[in-house]
Amino acid sequence: MTETIHIGNSALQEIDELLRNRAFSKVVVLVDDNTLAHCYPRLKDYLPEHSLIQIPSGEEHKTLQTCELIWQRMTELNLDRWAVLVNLGGGVIGDMGGFCASVFKRGIYFVQVPTTLLAQVDASVGGKTGIDFHGLKNHIGVYQEPQAVFIDPTFLQTLPQRQVKSGYAEIIKHWLIADAEAFQTQRNIGLFTEDWEALIRHSVHIKSEVVTADPLEGGYRKVLNFGHTVGHAVETYLMQQPGRELLHGEAIAVGMFCEAYLSVKKELLSKEELDKIETFLVSVYEKVSIGEDDIEKIAQLALQDKKNTRSTINCTLLQSIGKAVYDQAITLQDIQESLRYYQLL
Amino acid sequence: MTETIHIGNSALQEIDELLRNRAFSKVVVLVDDNTLAHCYPRLKDYLPEHSLIQIPSGEEHKTLQTCELIWQRMTELNLDRWAVLVNLGGGVIGDMGGFCASVFKRGIYFVQVPTTLLAQVDASVGGKTGIDFHGLKNHIGVYQEPQAVFIDPTFLQTLPQRQVKSGYAEIIKHWLIADAEAFQTQRNIGLFTEDWEALIRHSVHIKSEVVTADPLEGGYRKVLNFGHTVGHAVETYLMQQPGRELLHGEAIAVGMFCEAYLSVKKELLSKEELDKIETFLVSVYEKVSIGEDDIEKIAQLALQDKKNTRSTINCTLLQSIGKAVYDQAITLQDIQESLRYYQLL
Repeated sequence: MTETIHIGNSALQEIDELLRNRAFSKVVVLVDDNTLAHCYPRLKDYLPEHSLIQIPSGEEHKTLQTCELIWQRMTELNLDRWAVLVNLGGGVIGDMGGFCASVFKRGIYFVQVPTTLLAQVDASVGGKTGIDFHGLKNHIGVYQEPQAVFIDPTFLQTLPQRQVKSGYAEIIKHWLIADAEAFQTQRNIGLFTEDWEALIRHSVHIKSEVVTADPLEGGYRKVLNFGHTVGHAVETYLMQQPGRELLHGEAIAVGMFCEAYLSVKKELLSKEELDKIETFLVSVYEKVSIGEDDIEKIAQLALQDKKNTRSTINCTLLQSIGKAVYDQAITLQDIQESLRYYQLL
Repeated sequence: MTETIHIGNSALQEIDELLRNRAFSKVVVLVDDNTLAHCYPRLKDYLPEHSLIQIPSGEEHKTLQTCELIWQRMTELNLDRWAVLVNLGGGVIGDMGGFCASVFKRGIYFVQVPTTLLAQVDASVGGKTGIDFHGLKNHIGVYQEPQAVFIDPTFLQTLPQRQVKSGYAEIIKHWLIADAEAFQTQRNIGLFTEDWEALIRHSVHIKSEVVTADPLEGGYRKVLNFGHTVGHAVETYLMQQPGRELLHGEAIAVGMFCEAYLSVKKELLSKEELDKIETFLVSVYEKVSIGEDDIEKIAQLALQDKKNTRSTINCTLLQSIGKAVYDQAITLQDIQESLRYYQLL
């Protein structure tokens, strides 16, 4: 697990300390157009002398081609193995920057400074790095822990509401798989909170515990995939349809609907608990329109998902709110049925 | 370290055993044009049902573009994480196949079946995988051990003499850094041997001991870089000059000349031992013609070498035959001087 995850409004002071105390040969900051404009100004006061690598914003740039640009710049900067890459951004920057650092000269150091809620509670914890490949999400990547993660909730003020809701989906997921009480409490409060720092800290704690128990996803870590078998396929499919793209958490919200439904179908979850989950998700997320034509293609895409074994599709389902079970075999037909159910809500 | 390295004429029977006993979901064999024609016919009787991925032969294809083709084929074959890639070939196939497997879906299994002497005594041992990037050797890669390595000396019969000599350079290197007695013995015998299996076994043993002591090249493993600081630069430079390309070991032989010379210059090695090394290398390798124009460019290329720290150039030198010392600072001028010395031989 990550040695040190710093959470709070003073997290950036701690990055300052790390970068000055450790004898890194060079400090390079990876930004996209958005984080250069909105987040870098806040971070830069805490950095020693450094160089910038800038890439375009957006999941469509999480590709091998962008990696090539990053490696080209790293080469021009003459980075050696004692250099450190500071990934300032959301999941795309963290995942792709982590991957680029992990394979450049067989691995240089990197630290994560996640700037979206999604990256703060999910992508920055657990050592998964990667890029998309021919439209398949995180198809190429490695497991590699960063030197440290610095989570400053202040960055959330720079985010549009839609981005915040996207990250919130992973927080909800953490409750659904591991903390029934937090889910019940939050149901009464709704989306908005005064205290993001506490929510983030709790969510990071849940994820860290799971990842520490099973870093390479041999088994138990798969509980984190709840909502992701269907959700990833929905996300991948709509990414290829201009104007219909979803944010990651929006797709995962659809996936959680579908997989909660399948949990009832497989007689794991009670209908009452499904209702509670649905009510809460509906209060936060707008419905995504998915037609009959889409449904077949989404189900086929799910087959190509990384988390499958052999030619069956394994999925994480809920036994109850707060308890997930992994490696539950579901069929293409199950996925189609769940998406039809979602459309009828 | 590699759990299991099988060496001998019955090594392929052991791959049969591994592939049948382990529950891999699919077996895929990576070949190039040469190994498909000359080595695959011998291997295929020992394989269960499998698919082939074929790439063109040659170091010039050890690129990101070829990786893309391999990943594309892996995706089409619908490989999941329990698949295994069998890398049948020389260093290019082993390094690139190992890299492709290590990052596909964040890592599938792979085994190495090295078919050149070079790959048998060097590339297949030690967990280094990688590809060239913009002409820089092994610039992108990871450390990842294969499931197993199967070394069948019978494959050497398919090799041209020039390829055998190339691999022999790494065997000589292993003696120079770790076994003075073997070097002395072999000086009397010369290149040709009746018993490749024993030579390979001894060489793999030396390399394994070094790698086990320091898997991630934090320090001691750097002794294996003897001959490679100058040698890599020579290889990279001449790779870009049509008609002048060298095999890896041929370049490393030049590098060993130069770095043995620098070992004397730095007052580490005696002149008498340098003479012995030179005499032996001259008996095996033809001189490579390197002009004054080349020398400057080669020295500059060495600066971009992975093994450098900060802006000094660290190099592994010899204290005596059989004993190497790493992290010896040398200058651009030193490299140029050593190449000029080599030209005067």
